[in-house]
Amino acid sequence: MPDRMASSFSASDSSEIFARRLAASGDERLRQALVAAVAHLHTLVRELKPTSLEWRSFISFLTEVGHACDGRRQEWVLLSDLLGASALVEEVNTRRPKLATPNTVHGPFFRADAPELPLGSDISLDGIGERLAVAGRVQDLDGEAIAGAEIMTWQANSAGLYENQQPDLQPEFNLRGTFRTDDEGRFHYLTVRPAGYSVPDDGPVGGLLRKAGLPLRRPAHLHFMIRAAGFETIVTHLYDGSDPHLHEDAIFGVKPELVCHFERAAEKPSWWLDFTFVMARSKQGAQS
Amino acid sequence: MPDRMASSFSASDSSEIFARRLAASGDERLRQALVAAVAHLHTLVRELKPTSLEWRSFISFLTEVGHACDGRRQEWVLLSDLLGASALVEEVNTRRPKLATPNTVHGPFFRADAPELPLGSDISLDGIGERLAVAGRVQDLDGEAIAGAEIMTWQANSAGLYENQQPDLQPEFNLRGTFRTDDEGRFHYLTVRPAGYSVPDDGPVGGLLRKAGLPLRRPAHLHFMIRAAGFETIVTHLYDGSDPHLHEDAIFGVKPELVCHFERAAEKPSWWLDFTFVMARSKQGAQS
Repeated sequence: MPDRMASSFSASDSSEIFARRLAASGDERLRQALVAAVAHLHTLVRELKPTSLEWRSFISFLTEVGHACDGRRQEWVLLSDLLGASALVEEVNTRRPKLATPNTVHGPFFRADAPELPLGSDISLDGIGERLAVAGRVQDLDGEAIAGAEIMTWQANSAGLYENQQPDLQPEFNLRGTFRTDDEGRFHYLTVRPAGYSVPDDGPVGGLLRKAGLPLRRPAHLHFMIRAAGFETIVTHLYDGSDPHLHEDAIFGVKPELVCHFERAAEKPSWWLDFTFVMARSKQGAQS
Repeated sequence: MPDRMASSFSASDSSEIFARRLAASGDERLRQALVAAVAHLHTLVRELKPTSLEWRSFISFLTEVGHACDGRRQEWVLLSDLLGASALVEEVNTRRPKLATPNTVHGPFFRADAPELPLGSDISLDGIGERLAVAGRVQDLDGEAIAGAEIMTWQANSAGLYENQQPDLQPEFNLRGTFRTDDEGRFHYLTVRPAGYSVPDDGPVGGLLRKAGLPLRRPAHLHFMIRAAGFETIVTHLYDGSDPHLHEDAIFGVKPELVCHFERAAEKPSWWLDFTFVMARSKQGAQS
């Protein structure tokens, strides 16, 4: 009986049978994503031939990753980052002109609610670490200043830890802030020099990838999200060019044009950094 | 600087860069699985070119699936089942002789702790539904009885619901039981005829796949896990051949040799079913 057979799929035609069932779907993009994802998933199963026990281990891993997520921890973002998927999503989406500042991955430590501060503020609320003065300019591709651009910054402390990893040890919003560029497109603030760090390896994602021998270090960096009406939002990092792990960033986020050299100052603050962010106009006013 | 460039991967060589980082790993199977999975994941990203917003939606979906899992609900197994992955894992693993009973997917409703009962027991603890008498025999490929084989069965009720979906409405362990075959390899028990059902569509997995137009019905069936020392464990279904959804089982679990015809009895119980399970010897004593 042919229609009885239709639901009994064999290893060779399984993804075609899946795709056929979706044909009537109304959401074309969802259908396209599911068909492509299932084709790869089935090919992977055929290639790897996981035993039932291995598949159950995989399900257990997903379950543990799910349970590791809470309001302060996003283990799925970490997995996406460490497998290079987040960097690749940025890569296939960013079609900016060569001179515009490129995007990198967002990372799991962003908080949207960091307070807006006056220019010149010190975002190190505990004052621990080597002092760093950050100044910068936001401009368009023609070099024209972008006034009133919103600069959100977040970073690890001098021990390589973000405040939302240490809610009991660091002050809330330590090393985070939101600024606005002045009429010349400039901004500046005080902070401390961040340390590089290992990505969290106390959860299921870090545990698995450590076991696989994957480097879990991130070179020292500052995070920035820069928004201005009519321009593509920049979500990027600035890297400390002296960090020994620059060539093996755990989340594949280093791009040569984002590597900076912190300059030693003759007097306090000890270090300074000046960087120019270049924004590309958004297509049809939409922000990415 | 070449080693600075090494961590900045482009869309075309991203999975090779990932694979190279894993080369020193000690766990060869894990390395193989990660390299293959990441190659497919990166190809999928290159093919679909998800926007950042779409990728965040995907991360949100994973997060919701994770949060939908608890002690009674395994949403990851459901996802694996509905994408055909679970059926395919069984398919690539089961290399049984043609006459042995094939495996199907395990499904999310199994409980390992169902009580052991004397042969002839009634596993319908609320007595609701059309009565069904199940009898069977467990034998090897030569037709020799397997005495003392463990039969675990579980099924939905006459409304298509398992007791662990309705902890407040059905008695604990309703329509579940563990039996042992007698000296002739036979077993029998009383139950009710199960109804087909829709897989749970109130969680993120069912919600997404319903939106994609995927059939979410499972034809009526009984579940069995059969274990005996020296034989490969059978985990399988017996299907009601009269079910109109037999050709579009949501989890791709129907195989022609597992389709049964419940016979109408002249007197009570109203229906009966007799099925012979054929076990293959395990390789080197290992159970799958």
